[in-house]
Amino acid sequence: MGTPTLPAERAPVAAHTTDPEHIPHAKGRPEDYGPEMIAARQRYVEHVCGVPLRHVASFSVPPDETRGNIENFTGVAQVPLGIAGPLHVDGEYAQGEFLIPLATTEGSLVASYSRGMKVVNLAGGVRTTVSGGGMQRAPVFVFDSAREARDFVAWVGTQLDAIRAVSEATSHVAKLTHIEPFLSNQFAFLRFNFTTGDAGGQNMVGKATYAAYQWILANHRSVRRAYLESNFATDKKPSWVNVLHPRGKRVTAEATVPHDVLRHHLRVEPEQLAYHWGVANVGAMLSGANNNGLHSANAITALFIATGQDVANVSEGAAATTYVDVTPAGDLYFSITIPSLIVATHGGGTHLATQRECLAMLGCVGKGTVNKLAEIVAGTVLAGELSLAAAISSLEWVTAHERLGRNR
Amino acid sequence: MGTPTLPAERAPVAAHTTDPEHIPHAKGRPEDYGPEMIAARQRYVEHVCGVPLRHVASFSVPPDETRGNIENFTGVAQVPLGIAGPLHVDGEYAQGEFLIPLATTEGSLVASYSRGMKVVNLAGGVRTTVSGGGMQRAPVFVFDSAREARDFVAWVGTQLDAIRAVSEATSHVAKLTHIEPFLSNQFAFLRFNFTTGDAGGQNMVGKATYAAYQWILANHRSVRRAYLESNFATDKKPSWVNVLHPRGKRVTAEATVPHDVLRHHLRVEPEQLAYHWGVANVGAMLSGANNNGLHSANAITALFIATGQDVANVSEGAAATTYVDVTPAGDLYFSITIPSLIVATHGGGTHLATQRECLAMLGCVGKGTVNKLAEIVAGTVLAGELSLAAAISSLEWVTAHERLGRNR
Amino acid sequence: MGTPTLPAERAPVAAHTTDPEHIPHAKGRPEDYGPEMIAARQRYVEHVCGVPLRHVASFSVPPDETRGNIENFTGVAQVPLGIAGPLHVDGEYAQGEFLIPLATTEGSLVASYSRGMKVVNLAGGVRTTVSGGGMQRAPVFVFDSAREARDFVAWVGTQLDAIRAVSEATSHVAKLTHIEPFLSNQFAFLRFNFTTGDAGGQNMVGKATYAAYQWILANHRSVRRAYLESNFATDKKPSWVNVLHPRGKRVTAEATVPHDVLRHHLRVEPEQLAYHWGVANVGAMLSGANNNGLHSANAITALFIATGQDVANVSEGAAATTYVDVTPAGDLYFSITIPSLIVATHGGGTHLATQRECLAMLGCVGKGTVNKLAEIVAGTVLAGELSLAAAISSLEWVTAHERLGRNR
Amino acid sequence: MGTPTLPAERAPVAAHTTDPEHIPHAKGRPEDYGPEMIAARQRYVEHVCGVPLRHVASFSVPPDETRGNIENFTGVAQVPLGIAGPLHVDGEYAQGEFLIPLATTEGSLVASYSRGMKVVNLAGGVRTTVSGGGMQRAPVFVFDSAREARDFVAWVGTQLDAIRAVSEATSHVAKLTHIEPFLSNQFAFLRFNFTTGDAGGQNMVGKATYAAYQWILANHRSVRRAYLESNFATDKKPSWVNVLHPRGKRVTAEATVPHDVLRHHLRVEPEQLAYHWGVANVGAMLSGANNNGLHSANAITALFIATGQDVANVSEGAAATTYVDVTPAGDLYFSITIPSLIVATHGGGTHLATQRECLAMLGCVGKGTVNKLAEIVAGTVLAGELSLAAAISSLEWVTAHERLGRNR
Repeated sequence: MGTPTLPAERAPVAAHTTDPEHIPHAKGRPEDYGPEMIAARQRYVEHVCGVPLRHVASFSVPPDETRGNIENFTGVAQVPLGIAGPLHVDGEYAQGEFLIPLATTEGSLVASYSRGMKVVNLAGGVRTTVSGGGMQRAPVFVFDSAREARDFVAWVGTQLDAIRAVSEATSHVAKLTHIEPFLSNQFAFLRFNFTTGDAGGQNMVGKATYAAYQWILANHRSVRRAYLESNFATDKKPSWVNVLHPRGKRVTAEATVPHDVLRHHLRVEPEQLAYHWGVANVGAMLSGANNNGLHSANAITALFIATGQDVANVSEGAAATTYVDVTPAGDLYFSITIPSLIVATHGGGTHLATQRECLAMLGCVGKGTVNKLAEIVAGTVLAGELSLAAAISSLEWVTAHERLGRNR
Repeated sequence: MGTPTLPAERAPVAAHTTDPEHIPHAKGRPEDYGPEMIAARQRYVEHVCGVPLRHVASFSVPPDETRGNIENFTGVAQVPLGIAGPLHVDGEYAQGEFLIPLATTEGSLVASYSRGMKVVNLAGGVRTTVSGGGMQRAPVFVFDSAREARDFVAWVGTQLDAIRAVSEATSHVAKLTHIEPFLSNQFAFLRFNFTTGDAGGQNMVGKATYAAYQWILANHRSVRRAYLESNFATDKKPSWVNVLHPRGKRVTAEATVPHDVLRHHLRVEPEQLAYHWGVANVGAMLSGANNNGLHSANAITALFIATGQDVANVSEGAAATTYVDVTPAGDLYFSITIPSLIVATHGGGTHLATQRECLAMLGCVGKGTVNKLAEIVAGTVLAGELSLAAAISSLEWVTAHERLGRNR
Repeated sequence: MGTPTLPAERAPVAAHTTDPEHIPHAKGRPEDYGPEMIAARQRYVEHVCGVPLRHVASFSVPPDETRGNIENFTGVAQVPLGIAGPLHVDGEYAQGEFLIPLATTEGSLVASYSRGMKVVNLAGGVRTTVSGGGMQRAPVFVFDSAREARDFVAWVGTQLDAIRAVSEATSHVAKLTHIEPFLSNQFAFLRFNFTTGDAGGQNMVGKATYAAYQWILANHRSVRRAYLESNFATDKKPSWVNVLHPRGKRVTAEATVPHDVLRHHLRVEPEQLAYHWGVANVGAMLSGANNNGLHSANAITALFIATGQDVANVSEGAAATTYVDVTPAGDLYFSITIPSLIVATHGGGTHLATQRECLAMLGCVGKGTVNKLAEIVAGTVLAGELSLAAAISSLEWVTAHERLGRNR
Repeated sequence: MGTPTLPAERAPVAAHTTDPEHIPHAKGRPEDYGPEMIAARQRYVEHVCGVPLRHVASFSVPPDETRGNIENFTGVAQVPLGIAGPLHVDGEYAQGEFLIPLATTEGSLVASYSRGMKVVNLAGGVRTTVSGGGMQRAPVFVFDSAREARDFVAWVGTQLDAIRAVSEATSHVAKLTHIEPFLSNQFAFLRFNFTTGDAGGQNMVGKATYAAYQWILANHRSVRRAYLESNFATDKKPSWVNVLHPRGKRVTAEATVPHDVLRHHLRVEPEQLAYHWGVANVGAMLSGANNNGLHSANAITALFIATGQDVANVSEGAAATTYVDVTPAGDLYFSITIPSLIVATHGGGTHLATQRECLAMLGCVGKGTVNKLAEIVAGTVLAGELSLAAAISSLEWVTAHERLGRNR
């Protein structure tokens, strides 16, 4: 365990009056990530805010590694990391038992997920399946009329080879799978879909789409106005287009838990969980949620922070569809599909010091590991759904008559 | 700057076979957060995964402070932290200039927000307003019929004093503001609304509602079945009930940017941003998003990580409504409302070492600071919306004729 | 059966060139509904379009009765009307057996609903419950800032007596129950909620709200701009605000069908319908529907046309939440809640000749009958859901092993 | 005008006790639509309900023509029909001026649409564009696991020729354009998309999909359970899948209204409508509507009743996206896209007497007229949006200062 030297405390100064001229801004140069600039920034913050940065300034990550991840690097947020598991994952990419690093400050979360994992393991593990994926950018083209917009879309359909060529020339990784057009009013929204290897791919896809965008504008004469983005991606926002069409990975986790295991370890019957699922569906429908499960965002967020994902993509990732059934043998079938889970094992924050270690714990370092990570995230999510569903059912209140009538 | 001692590298061992019996699980005792247990866990992870925990194990936060925040504490995720700003906030709680700590791994985010802040400052700062708030738990009561469910809701209306008494007795802080019933089928969903002081309040409200739940079950005879939770809260999930009725704070940020400032610093005209807003609205409507802006989740996530918030609440926080107008004087009015921003300055991860320093930077330590934090988050969000909107418009493609006709 | 005299056929003339000067427009005067004007209009249409109006011109409804319902009265659409039922309704307002008039052109609809009604009757009838209601108009007030908008809402809260007085003075019927404010950006949306007796009440509420709107504008000085409507009603549009908060009646229909009845008459088991409900829930969640049932809009539309409702309110009425359960005794519990069913037995088209007869069939003529009508509509909807659910399940494909395991 | 013989009034009898054995149910035989059976049914209703059917029994439509449209034919609902227009449509299928038959009981609706049409005509007419279309049925296939579901979808992709052959063999009209799969949990939802000529096509597509469904079940061995419908069509329900992917026709109407025309005839400025559009967008976003316009369902419903459409499809048709802009020349650009307008000129109720006359008025009788009808509906919708938007703006309240600053 590290025991870093802390900076000496300093007397606070008057807060909240700053002189922007004096901010030691990074300009992307290597020296901006050097110790002098970092120290200058820390001193500046301490001076302006009157707050000694004893802990923010305490880190082991080499600052120059954060170039490309942050500007005005001043230190780190230290987010507590607990280990849940092991979780037995029976995936196509993830096979075996995994210790799951969860970075969170929400008490009992690690314990609850661990509880779910124990049960999942006793059930033979969680089966995980990646069934689709992609990353999008969606420029909009404005025309004089809907008719021109429609004809433009037809023209785009005839130019796919050229568009693919220019967009794929921007990287060695991004491959254009298809362009989905959405027509409205005088607008043609083109939702470009790419595969992006092990990267999340937002930037890569931004560049690839921009190349296509410029090519289109150079080659089609009736565009009146255009923007590279139009709220159809939809990046960092919950939306139905992302529920229907995967942004990131579409991934499912499933477990079949024997009734004895469920009863003994979570003190619920399969029928109780199935019943609560039905009630929670009505709640989800009525409240207008895009998730009929319980708290998938918890695992996603904690794993995203731990492994260097773009955590704001919890916006898209929080959507999910759970399904619960009692099998003919009286066991519990429990599954969850996350339609748009944006994960990466390359690029973004994945190369940073602690994040890399967490990815390494999961065996998700190196080429071709992104689907493995998606599976592990989904498997973890399922363990937590199961655990919380059982906890809610343990607070279930049922009349004796009802209980006797049903669970027998 | 801290220079922690790193643990020596160790040889990797075979990955992904674990023996759950040997996991040094925390059981919530003080010694579970002591150096021996932490070291044991680190060794266990290193052994099992074959990954030396050089950086995860390197932290300055006193582990015993994380009790109540995490189980199986093993180290930390170090998330790079950059300082944006200063941002001039003209709020009712936040007044003056603030340096904004953003914990993120998304390159250019800090720079982009800083760019927006500069413009906002030149516009006289961002006006912020908290216009509502609350925290919810929503039990469901199952009856033999819709009629009994409806009559139950009427009965609850006559018992508010008693229900308030038992629920408020569970803490010194939570105050029951109202119970909103939603009736469907044979179910009565009761959405309990509390104020929770400076805390996010999910747990506090859980306890308070549980007390009410038990009291109701003891005092009403026709409930057939009940659950403390029913997907009507809706916790950690995007939903329309949370867009309409605030979960956390409902907060708005506004700025009026003089056209000269906009033109000079962001190289766009007010009319361009207003035009793009209209187009982006069509995109948002059609894609079924709950946010007609661009990327509010970015600032929210980065500030949430930095300041010890429950980051999974980005699920609720990612909803937003932007509005853009050109004033009679030709300046830009730009505003954003976040309907459900769950923030805390007490409880959760807010007391942890780096998180506390970040809250201190913002002057958000101590009683009565939660609205101040909400205002600062909203102000930051607005700066980023402005910056990205301008960036998108800088890639705008407009025919010369169109440009001449419009922007002159 | 009527055998009206048909107008003689006329030779068609060149279509689709008209002279607007010559259109015999109604101006709301009594003579505009007289035989000369009607005949003139018919001749005009026949002349312009070259289409003899033999059937449109054939009606028994006295034209002057349509004053206030239509302008430029030219004839009628004859929509075939079939009788389904009888349906045994066990409501609080509707009690007994009802013959249900359905005006539709969709073949098999009447037969399918009748099939469901037969089963419902054998189950002892459909229990119906009205659990809420209201009619809304939602003006928007624009301010210089969010803060002024919020303070305005607080001020409105102090002026409710005066606002109620001026709005209720506009009719003898409309009663203001509450005003629900929604704050966003620089806007205060005020959703006025009224009860409107037996009327649908859109116009009544429009007038009542307009009076309040004017009073507010005269008494509050900082409103900068305002509109009587703002898309928050939300009239004639599906929306989540209407799912959560009733527009029209919130009404539930329930039936408990003995398994023998279900098996014998619909050839399905309760478990099959429960299983399909679960699958259909996943479909509804994923497709972003506001209805997890099958086709409630069919009954609503056919009854709306027959009984003189504002049929465009199918937009709001199409939302629904179904719930299916197998009771401890192995019977089927089936229910549906329609959150926003806009019905009237007074005003609108309810006084017209055929419409009045259909309302009379249902015993829904005269004061205090609107809840009865809501119950009958909901009961009819349930019968149709049951019938179609069984029909879908009759096309169910199940492996022998699956069937043996489950339904035994 | 027809003056049908009315049945003599009869004394009312005790209401709401019926004997189902005696109901003269139709069984689909020709004689069920003969005068005896109809009279028997009328007498039955009159006897049971004590309501003389003077007007319901008065019709000119030959009852045997309603075979296939209704069972238990007992008479008609006479819905008042007014003529709006003429409307100048500048479409690709509809060209010239049209008199628009609106069947409604909502007073002022015809007048308001006519007002809008007048303005649209002075603007040179409404441009209309059909940009897509289809009709769907969406069976669901249940598997043991997500993996099998995914592999099944891949297999379906290899069998498209065979699937197309069997499904297209069920009619001469339906053509399978594509199958869109949606994977979730252990389910594969296959959304079959067909073109259906001039028919709405729900039944045709149902048959075609059923053939494919049977073929698939016979040829793929791992399906465990399957249903022909799964809430992914989504028929008769508002949903986001239908907003994104056209069910029926995706059709846009546009008009550019000179500012002088707008000012003179609707007493508003283009800027006022553009401003209100922005405010109404915020309302639509916040209220969770799928329509940012005002009342498109009104025109759709009235035209659907008049022309024999399946009126319950207003559920899907009520979604819309409006867009408003002020052109460089200071004129108003106004447009609306209806993403899922289900219309037919063949099949359903289109062949019935009054409905046929209304279609004939529009020149929409005969092969290849369905897009023409879609264009006319969209053009009518736009006229009504314009008229109501202007009416709302005429109640606009604006401070003098604001008005002077803006509209000058």
